[in-house]
Order: sequence, then structure tokens, then C-alpha cells
Amino acid sequence: MERQGQEHLEADDLSEVWAALTPEERGNGLLELSRAQAHEFFVELTTLDQAALLPYLPKSEWRVWIRLLAPDDAVDLVQQVDLELRDELMSLLDEPTRREVTALLAYAEDDAGGLMSPRFARIRPEMTADEAIGYLRKQARDRVETLSYIYVLDAEQTLLGVVSFRELFAAAAGSRVKDIMRRDLVTVPADLDQEELSRLFARHGLAAIPVVDAAGKLSGIVTLDDIVEVVAQEATEDIHKLGGMEALATPYLDTPFMSMVKKRGGWLAALFLGELLTASAMTEYEDDIARAVVLALFVPLIISSGGNSGSQATTLIIRAMALGEVEPRDWWRIVKRELAAGLVLGAILSVIGLVRVLAWQAVWHSYGEHYLAVAITVAVSLLFVVAWGTISGSMLPFVIRRLGFDPASASAPFVATLVDVLGLVIYFNVAQIVMSGTLL
Amino acid sequence: MERQGQEHLEADDLSEVWAALTPEERGNGLLELSRAQAHEFFVELTTLDQAALLPYLPKSEWRVWIRLLAPDDAVDLVQQVDLELRDELMSLLDEPTRREVTALLAYAEDDAGGLMSPRFARIRPEMTADEAIGYLRKQARDRVETLSYIYVLDAEQTLLGVVSFRELFAAAAGSRVKDIMRRDLVTVPADLDQEELSRLFARHGLAAIPVVDAAGKLSGIVTLDDIVEVVAQEATEDIHKLGGMEALATPYLDTPFMSMVKKRGGWLAALFLGELLTASAMTEYEDDIARAVVLALFVPLIISSGGNSGSQATTLIIRAMALGEVEPRDWWRIVKRELAAGLVLGAILSVIGLVRVLAWQAVWHSYGEHYLAVAITVAVSLLFVVAWGTISGSMLPFVIRRLGFDPASASAPFVATLVDVLGLVIYFNVAQIVMSGTLL
Repeated sequence: MERQGQEHLEADDLSEVWAALTPEERGNGLLELSRAQAHEFFVELTTLDQAALLPYLPKSEWRVWIRLLAPDDAVDLVQQVDLELRDELMSLLDEPTRREVTALLAYAEDDAGGLMSPRFARIRPEMTADEAIGYLRKQARDRVETLSYIYVLDAEQTLLGVVSFRELFAAAAGSRVKDIMRRDLVTVPADLDQEELSRLFARHGLAAIPVVDAAGKLSGIVTLDDIVEVVAQEATEDIHKLGGMEALATPYLDTPFMSMVKKRGGWLAALFLGELLTASAMTEYEDDIARAVVLALFVPLIISSGGNSGSQATTLIIRAMALGEVEPRDWWRIVKRELAAGLVLGAILSVIGLVRVLAWQAVWHSYGEHYLAVAITVAVSLLFVVAWGTISGSMLPFVIRRLGFDPASASAPFVATLVDVLGLVIYFNVAQIVMSGTLL
Repeated sequence: MERQGQEHLEADDLSEVWAALTPEERGNGLLELSRAQAHEFFVELTTLDQAALLPYLPKSEWRVWIRLLAPDDAVDLVQQVDLELRDELMSLLDEPTRREVTALLAYAEDDAGGLMSPRFARIRPEMTADEAIGYLRKQARDRVETLSYIYVLDAEQTLLGVVSFRELFAAAAGSRVKDIMRRDLVTVPADLDQEELSRLFARHGLAAIPVVDAAGKLSGIVTLDDIVEVVAQEATEDIHKLGGMEALATPYLDTPFMSMVKKRGGWLAALFLGELLTASAMTEYEDDIARAVVLALFVPLIISSGGNSGSQATTLIIRAMALGEVEPRDWWRIVKRELAAGLVLGAILSVIGLVRVLAWQAVWHSYGEHYLAVAITVAVSLLFVVAWGTISGSMLPFVIRRLGFDPASASAPFVATLVDVLGLVIYFNVAQIVMSGTLL
């Protein structure tokens, strides 16, 4: 792209360094852009960035900035700023937008209602294609969210059907809207969860979905660009939870230190309390360890293998649930599949473990005269522990979902904790059977 | 939505049971829909589903099905089916589409070129708004991907600018396209990675981005609906890798058992080989354990705490990298932040660990006369091990990226393995210092 020499900072240059700037520097940078670029730049920022920036922009200009935003984006911003600023921002909106924003504020942020915009393009069923296009030409000046779909409403605002702009455009000039519109359309209620909504977008390949109330009146539309953010944001939440913590709501480097420590510390402490059970379990087998210290050597190996196989299983199931690929009714199919996978994977690790113990014994005589008992104990335990890992890792998300929590809380560390405790019990019991009469 | 009684199966009913059907049942279901519904249903399926379905549809009808697809979707399907079917499918396309598909096949699947469609709406700079709208009306019949943006090209197909349809529509009838078009637009080269591309969509809030060659000619456009899939798919890949395995390319329940086991077994075995180092480390301290069996009791607790704190850190950094929130140059800021977080989190676990040892000692005298040395060893080790977990967990993604691999391979299990080995070394060295002269 060609650039002409000018005194203003360029938006692209600001974009490039944006992440590294403090809010104050960001504000100054924005004010150094040309007016047109600054406006566009501000509109394209995330709501979080807009909210963080506002205090560093001259208060006399707030009216300008907030009026740049479409109602659904203004709602997001109003919800993001501190409570005391909220009323002030609302008072800066023009009257019709304020009414729209107030109506939208009633919806939960992560529902279809919280994502929808009331600025959709509308026509009447009895219009001809040409009349409709002329009518839309007027609406195009009012910044409707999209012209891709035109909604056909009666006088009571009841949604009768939809025409894509392309269909309308390609239709014969005199044909009636009601004859070319599609009556069979996907609609959602305002309280539909955004994750569910994003799946509908994916399944039907739509660019917008209308939100209707119980009486069939069109309240607003959710457009694909809002959904891209939802998909990324839901994935981030799941990934954070899978890592064994509460999801951060803001980018890593923008999250205040103490708030981050709280979100990590809570889960870390909870997992720690769970892991304390391993100390109790180990105490049960303290005498065995005292008699056969060699047993202690393989404890980390055994429990981590169970944890790793559990982490794989829980990750697969949680993601498949989030994408709607796996339903609660599939649990039995999954148990069978994961049991089989666990036994195959366990067998692979068993063989490696067996070879390792025998090889070290052959070269360094590391494990004394009863090395064969040690090798068998390790190999058999691995088989069971890995299979237990895959089973518990794959079932925990179902259990947690059944209890009404987010299955993504069945994080890899959570599963590992579960597997560690039972893994120790399996290991020492196998040892007692295999080594009975020799080492134990 | 109202339904009229009819003999055909309804698309919504088929959707509902789709996930539970075998490919053969899916094929039969599709054939039971009305023609119009079946066509729409097929087009909306994912490429994977389309490819799996094809063998179960009458071969005589393949021509019909593949001709329903836009060139970019046809390319995806052709790339998905077995090699021997590829030529057969290509031969079923009409000549112009075959040429488009052949051109698109030259691009990598996960680049901008692999996602783009050559069916964009185009106008000339010297047209008036009214002429342009009339011209577009003809193009609307040819199934262009979107009418949201109209690209302004000269006779050599060089991209000069863009007008949104809305702008064109709202402009005075006689105004020239070249006077209302925007010249300052975001373009990408065909070899831009899809992850990078999805970030551009998010940053600029666009519905489509043009792909241009080195000479500035417009090759195609990537539309937002392709990007939603990319965002979800990239997140799935990262999540699978974070779980400690190779990413599955297909939904969990559709992935053949052996292919799934291979993708999990490879990493599981690699991690197991890493964990074997824990057995070596433990062997180093075998004499210490023999003298103070109480030390063995806390081994699982210590290493898992390090693993959990490492899992949190690596998950946060990998996701932030994927979203472009964290760049390689940020590494030093992150080290400082994670060191601080690790010390705070470690201190919390230290205190809980200390209380636990002292409480059990008070009630059950679990740890003998040297219980204070045990308590201090556990507490001090926790502090260091957790801090080591956050540091190594946050830095490993940078190291892996520097080595040219995907940072998401720095999975929680990978970090845990790293932390386990060094965690043991930390623990036993702390023990040797604290217990020197008493237990050891």
C-alpha cells in the first residue's frame, strides 16, 4: 500500500507497537492519528482496550468516541467500565441509541441477547423486489449491521421470513418479497447461551441469526463477526481451565498480578489438598517402602504415566464436548473406547518399562537379586495405571457436567491428582502380590 | 417454525441424530430429504463429513453433489478424499470450475491461498454508483461469495480499492466509484498462514480480506465464515497438543481407533522416556530414602505441585502466544512476572504443607522425632519447586518456538516431566541440607 508523506502518525504503525504501550501512551498515540484513522482505529479495538483507553482521552471528546459505536458495541463498553462512569457514558449517547442500549443492557453478556444488534435491515412481504431495494437504499445510510440478510416483518414486527440481499438483487424487478423469501429459517431466543449459538452458526454456515421473542417478534440479529470473538474467547476459557486454573478474562500481560495469582492460587491450593492424599496413601505403604526401598524409585514414573494418559483423555473429551461432537448419551461408547485405548497404551509403556528395568539390571545391577519381581511389578502397574488414567480422564468431564459444572474444570491437573492417589494404591497392591514372600 | 405434513424426512430431524449415525445411515438419510433440503444440507456439512459420505451416495449422482460446492469448498473436498477418487471428482466439475479448483489446489491447505475463493464481486473505478449496482446485479446471479465488499479492479485485475456495498448503495447515483472507494486496505499474500490471517480478521473486524499476488493483482478473497472454522480448528489443535498428544484431525468419535492410539502413544512414550529420568534421579537418592523413609512419602506431593504450577504457566503463555498477545520479545517481562507468581504461589502451598505435617504429627505422630526437619524440608522444597514450575512452564514455549516447533507442544505433561526430574533433585538436596546431622 502506498503512503503519502504527512504529519500524522499512521494507524498501521500504531497497531504494530500497540501491545507494548501503556494505556496512557495508547491514548496519546490515538490522538496523534488523523481524525478519520483514529475513529476507525477506536471502533476496531476490543471492548477491553476501549474501556482501558477512555480515562486517557480528553473527557470533552468522550461523546465523539462513544457515538462511533454501534449499539451492541456501546453496550459492551458500558458494561466494561467502572460503575460510576456508566451513567456518564449513557448520558453522552443520542436519545434513540440510548434507548437501544438500555434495552440491550437487560440481557446477559454471554447470551444471544447480549450479542444482538437491533440494527437489522427490514422490508415488508408485499413489496416488490425493486421497491424493497429502494427501501433498503435508505436503510443503508443508517448503518445497519449487515445487508447480507434482509428480514421480512409484518406491521407487528413479527418475523415472517428472510431474503438474502443477493436473492433480492437477482430476482425479477416486479416479483413480490413474500414469493421469494424463505420462511424456513433458524431463529434463537434471547437467552440462548453464546456457546450454543456459535455451534448453530457453524452447523448452518450462516452470516447472521435473528433473535425472536416468545411472540415471534424480531428483537435483533447476531452477526458472524461477534461469533468469531465468542469462539476464540470460549476456547481461551476452556484452555485456561484445562491448564488447571480459573479462566483469565483479560490478556495475560494486562491481567493485574494479584488477580492472576488469585485465579491460579485457588485451584493450585485445591489440587494441593487433593495431592495431600498421596502423602496419606504413601504412609499406608511406609513399611513396604522401608523393606523394599527399590519400590520408591518408580513412584514418580508410575503416577506421572497415569497422569499423562488421563490428561490426553480428558482433553479429548472436553474439547469434543465443547464442539458438540460428544453428548452425554455417548458415555458408554467412550468408556469402551478408552478402556481399549488405555490397555493398548498401557501395554506399550509396560514393555518399555520392563526393558528399562532389565537393561539397567544387566548393566549396573541396579535392582538387586529380586529384579525380576521389580520389573514385573512396574510393568503390571503401568498397564493398570494407564488404563485407569484413560477411564477416569474420559469420565470425569461427564461426571462434572452431570453435577452442573463446566466439564472443562476436569483439567489435566485435576485428573492427574485423581490418578496419582489411586495409581499409588494400584502400584503398591501389585507389589504386595508380586513380591509376597520375597521382598515383602 | 411451522411444518407442513409431507413424506420427506426433515433436515432438522436429520441434523438432530446426525452425530449418532454411521456414514451409510447418513447417506440414506440424506437421500430421504427433499431434493432442495438435501442440497442445502450437503453444502452445509463440514468437508470431512462430505468426504466420508460420498462413497455412500450413488456414483451417478456425484456430479450433482460436487457441483453444488463453491470452488474453495470443492478444493477442500478434493483434498480430503482418497487419491484415486481425486481425479474422478475433478472430472465431474464443469470446465470453468475445474480450472478454478486446479488453480486453488496449488496452495497449501492452511494458507490464505488455500482458504480463498476466486468468486468475488468486482467493478471498475470509472463506473458511476448506479452503473456499478446494475453491474453487480448481474454478478449476484453467479453466486459471488459476498456482496459486502466490492473490489475495484483495473483492466489488468490490479486491486485499486474497495467499496462496501452499503457505501455504494448509499452514495449519490451519479458519483464515481473511484471517488467513493477506499484505497487504504488490508491485503494479504497467498502464503500467509491461516492463524496469522485469523488474527488480522480479529484486529480489523473485517468480513473479507483480499489475497493479492506480488504484482498487486487480486487472486481471491477469504471470507469471515472460513475464518470461524479456522479459529475453532486452531483452538482444537492447540488444546489437543496441550493435553500432551498429536492433534486429531477428525472428531473424537470419528477418528479410527488405531490412528488415535498412534497420536497418543507417540507422545505418551516420549514423555515416559523422559519420566524414566525420575527413576534415575531417585536411584541417586536411594540411600537417603533408605535412611529416612519418611522422605519418600512426600515425593508425589512435591513433584505434582511443581507440575501443576508449570501446567498453569505454560497454558497461559501458549494461549497468549496463539492470540498474538505475547511476542518473543516479551520473554523477560514474563520471567519476572512468573518468578514473582511462583514465589507467591509456592509460599501458599508451603504454608499449607507445613500445617499439614505439623497437624498430622500432633494428632498421629506420623513423622517421628525429626518431624520438624521433615516439615521444613517439605515447605522449603515446595517454594522452590513451584517457582521452578512457573519459570520452566512459561519459558518452555519460547524455547520450543525458537527451535522452530509449535509452542503448543510445550504441553502440560511435557512441562510436568521436566519439573518432575528437577523437582526431585531440589527436594532431596533441600533434605540433605535440612536433615544433615539428624536423619541424613
